Amino acid sequence: MDMNQQVILAQRPQGPVTTDDFRLMQSAVRQPDAGEILIRNHWLSLDPYMRSRISAAKSYAQGVEPGQIMVGATVGQVLKSESPDYQVGDWVLSASGWQTQPTLAAESVSKLDEEAGVSLSAYLGVAGMPGITAWTGLMTICEPKAGETVVVDAASGAVGSVVGQLAKGLGCRVVGIAGGPQKCAYVVEELGFDACVDHRSETFTQDLEQALPDGIDCLFENVGGEIFETLLGHMNTFGRVALCGMISELNDRPHHFRGLRPLLVQRLKVQGFIVSDRMETWPEIRKTLIQKVASGELRYRESIADGIENAPQAFVGLLNGRNFGKQLVRLV
Amino acid sequence: MDMNQQVILAQRPQGPVTTDDFRLMQSAVRQPDAGEILIRNHWLSLDPYMRSRISAAKSYAQGVEPGQIMVGATVGQVLKSESPDYQVGDWVLSASGWQTQPTLAAESVSKLDEEAGVSLSAYLGVAGMPGITAWTGLMTICEPKAGETVVVDAASGAVGSVVGQLAKGLGCRVVGIAGGPQKCAYVVEELGFDACVDHRSETFTQDLEQALPDGIDCLFENVGGEIFETLLGHMNTFGRVALCGMISELNDRPHHFRGLRPLLVQRLKVQGFIVSDRMETWPEIRKTLIQKVASGELRYRESIADGIENAPQAFVGLLNGRNFGKQLVRLV
Repeated sequence: MDMNQQVILAQRPQGPVTTDDFRLMQSAVRQPDAGEILIRNHWLSLDPYMRSRISAAKSYAQGVEPGQIMVGATVGQVLKSESPDYQVGDWVLSASGWQTQPTLAAESVSKLDEEAGVSLSAYLGVAGMPGITAWTGLMTICEPKAGETVVVDAASGAVGSVVGQLAKGLGCRVVGIAGGPQKCAYVVEELGFDACVDHRSETFTQDLEQALPDGIDCLFENVGGEIFETLLGHMNTFGRVALCGMISELNDRPHHFRGLRPLLVQRLKVQGFIVSDRMETWPEIRKTLIQKVASGELRYRESIADGIENAPQAFVGLLNGRNFGKQLVRLV
Repeated sequence: MDMNQQVILAQRPQGPVTTDDFRLMQSAVRQPDAGEILIRNHWLSLDPYMRSRISAAKSYAQGVEPGQIMVGATVGQVLKSESPDYQVGDWVLSASGWQTQPTLAAESVSKLDEEAGVSLSAYLGVAGMPGITAWTGLMTICEPKAGETVVVDAASGAVGSVVGQLAKGLGCRVVGIAGGPQKCAYVVEELGFDACVDHRSETFTQDLEQALPDGIDCLFENVGGEIFETLLGHMNTFGRVALCGMISELNDRPHHFRGLRPLLVQRLKVQGFIVSDRMETWPEIRKTLIQKVASGELRYRESIADGIENAPQAFVGLLNGRNFGKQLVRLV
């Protein structure tokens, strides 16, 4: 009998997430009813937002309760179809979560174009939610002009890497913040950022000063906490901050900000956003990103874990910055 | 010999401002050269922004050094004119600072219209910088829609009182925060706010909860610190914060924010602004405000100290919320 393997939330994390907070389960694959399709997932996306979904703290989306399957985007292939809209063999993107063979309503998934010129896993990264997040925050909140300085932290990650490359394409000076010399080298040498500052270095504060002779006009903030507070101190008058994530605070105690006077003194705009508020904009943005990937203008890197049983460990790694680029789990 | 009385900054405040930080001086009135006018000031405006000008901390404007005359807006009458643009007896608005008989370049002042239907002191309050500040933050950053909830703190003050009345005119539910039952009664009964919460009350947190059954859509923030942090926790999704002042933090140690997650979770926009960044918009806004004062739509209240020698004490009072409405010093 074919089995559907699933990872469920075993318990809400007490402090930092550990692999003990998850449990691998399996159940018989469910045959599709009318209007449904059975999918074999090939790729599971792991993303920082999942941390807030398993927290008891108030967030912007419905949380995952203990005993429920973990949420997540997946790319898979149709195994059986009871829908006129899907053929066996079609590639689909769905929000099926951490499982290998889900049975889903056909209208809840979307068909992928194999001929678009990007790999299928890219629909979970550079041409998926993370890439669209990067585009949205940069273009609608930061709105950088050529010659301005754009800073992004978690710069080698799925979102940060796209932010920086898009900003370079607009003629900005782009400075990344990343954890460790290897990620920083990648950000500068492979992605073409103007500079990268290692936040794990003992000379972080001085290195940052040196990398920002003209301050910061646009900050794309993924990390929060102490790094965010330090960057706020470098903002120029009329600077804009796209507040995308505060991953450092999610997995730890919240950072206490020593003061928000820079917001007033420098007349900053700080705006939080969630890309799923604007689903109607996704198709157009995705098309733009796919073109840039196909043309070589957007480069990306993936960290791949093998097998659904390794998803929890890969997720813990992601929360601790051990991934290098987009974190995926290969399920087949 | 006619003397010009002046208040200078004697020393930078160590901690909270005291009257010892100022000194009253006098010097002979200077006769105007070609292109200059001699003015007898009648009204001096005292405003919270002056606190940052005398601080050593970085601010958005040139500071006042010890030994220099205190900055400030004044309304006065021309005593002597060596300019073709001004006649003796003309009423003028100038940034002449805390002094009684300044001699100024004619092009640095502006003529006031005595026939506009507002009192001359109103050009320093409801129809001056504070009123224009209220209009700017509310209309360009908060942009409230009818039916939304607008909250403003320091609600009985020169800025807050205008914010609330303008928002009422837009069809919003308006809740003020003020210090003490007397100010709160004024805000509701005289200014027509829907509710007012006394931040000095022991039941502030519960009273606030009760006054905000539908949360906050627009926050006009004048106070900063603990009050600001508490209000942030009540913001609705897609809420807007016009960050105008953080007066509570200026005269004391800066508040440590326990976390900025509401910005992300509720997708807030928080934007600092300074009304002098947009001087080109002032004439039109001033005209609107004058019309609303003349028609009775905008009401205001003034706290008046008598004599320049009492300006320091009145300023210390303003920083501690002892004023009730716009704080002025009558100089004649």
